[in-house]
Amino acid sequence: MKIALLGGTGDIGAGLALRLALLGYEVIIGSRKIEKATSKCEEYIKTLENVKRGCTLAGKSNEDAAREADVSILTIPWEHAFSTAESLKESLEGKIVVSPIVPMEKKGGCFQYCPPEAGSAAEEIARILPNSRIVSAFQTVPAAKFCNLDAEFEWDIPVCSDDDEAKKVVMDIINRIDGLRALDAGLLSVSRMVESITPLLVNIMIRNKIKHLSVRFC
Amino acid sequence: MKIALLGGTGDIGAGLALRLALLGYEVIIGSRKIEKATSKCEEYIKTLENVKRGCTLAGKSNEDAAREADVSILTIPWEHAFSTAESLKESLEGKIVVSPIVPMEKKGGCFQYCPPEAGSAAEEIARILPNSRIVSAFQTVPAAKFCNLDAEFEWDIPVCSDDDEAKKVVMDIINRIDGLRALDAGLLSVSRMVESITPLLVNIMIRNKIKHLSVRFC
Repeated sequence: MKIALLGGTGDIGAGLALRLALLGYEVIIGSRKIEKATSKCEEYIKTLENVKRGCTLAGKSNEDAAREADVSILTIPWEHAFSTAESLKESLEGKIVVSPIVPMEKKGGCFQYCPPEAGSAAEEIARILPNSRIVSAFQTVPAAKFCNLDAEFEWDIPVCSDDDEAKKVVMDIINRIDGLRALDAGLLSVSRMVESITPLLVNIMIRNKIKHLSVRFC
Repeated sequence: MKIALLGGTGDIGAGLALRLALLGYEVIIGSRKIEKATSKCEEYIKTLENVKRGCTLAGKSNEDAAREADVSILTIPWEHAFSTAESLKESLEGKIVVSPIVPMEKKGGCFQYCPPEAGSAAEEIARILPNSRIVSAFQTVPAAKFCNLDAEFEWDIPVCSDDDEAKKVVMDIINRIDGLRALDAGLLSVSRMVESITPLLVNIMIRNKIKHLSVRFC
């Protein structure tokens, strides 16, 4: 299966690239600038060489990555995520598109969730890409710890979608990643409750001086 | 310290009554009907007799409970919470009032968070009780497991307030309860991100056939 990480050159993209490639998925790193995608790929392959040879990673433009992949994950900073999705509309038609997007901003000393009019980032993506199969996941994964292949964790990933088949595909991918457990959280409209956990985690990390927090339901 | 559980005759009130009384707090169960509060108290005392003698629990009207207590916890179903707070306005003046309230409803097969206009239940309580010291906590505690004194758990309780001193009092109480860890989550406006975890937990429990889920940040 081919998985594209659109805008996958930083943040949560790095951890997903490494871990998905290790599992045998064909990973395509997408970027607005092909050179950036290619050089990131070389970096990821170098990191993986110590762990496992023969991983498949390729750097492409976001458009080519989206067109070639079966599943695309929008690992794009939220400020650019909606316009990027808009520009990739045709390439993503009929495809599974995963939204880990969390719109948030600092207000009066605390981080606040600031969803778009659709109710959540995932629903906004569904509005922008009406012919794609939208799944919401990965919002609460702390990027820095996730891309450290020696890190140990037990995190739960709530997964939301109105498309049960697409949801199952994404849950299966998540459950193959060591330390992650996918949990069916229901329809895409539930995504707002998942997305808003991320600014809460940021507030808790800052106030309690704890790093790399994610969530576990127990 | 005297702690009132207003409407504390059911749900999360039972677990709090038992556990706080065991810790040596003077617990007052408040109810609209004194007889109900008194008979619940007798039930709680009977349960506690097997564990520890000499616990202090009393049943009162909500008004008397609120007036006598240092800290009042609004363990009231959300549909009645705001009108009850309104009716206890004078008795709660200057006091610490804890909101575990989560407004939610089922929409299209999933539970949704439906906050009041103030942004969250805790902020609505702050609007109704401008002269009380509002703290948001306990939203994600599963009532049935929490009132089982043999149950084992490790749950995190995010605590929000604009009143740092009141927040500290509540965090100290929480940290004395075995299996709970209080985490400073920031200002009262962060409460909307905590409250919305509860309907998410309900959705996850139903869809994945898991019972008594709470949350842990790790």
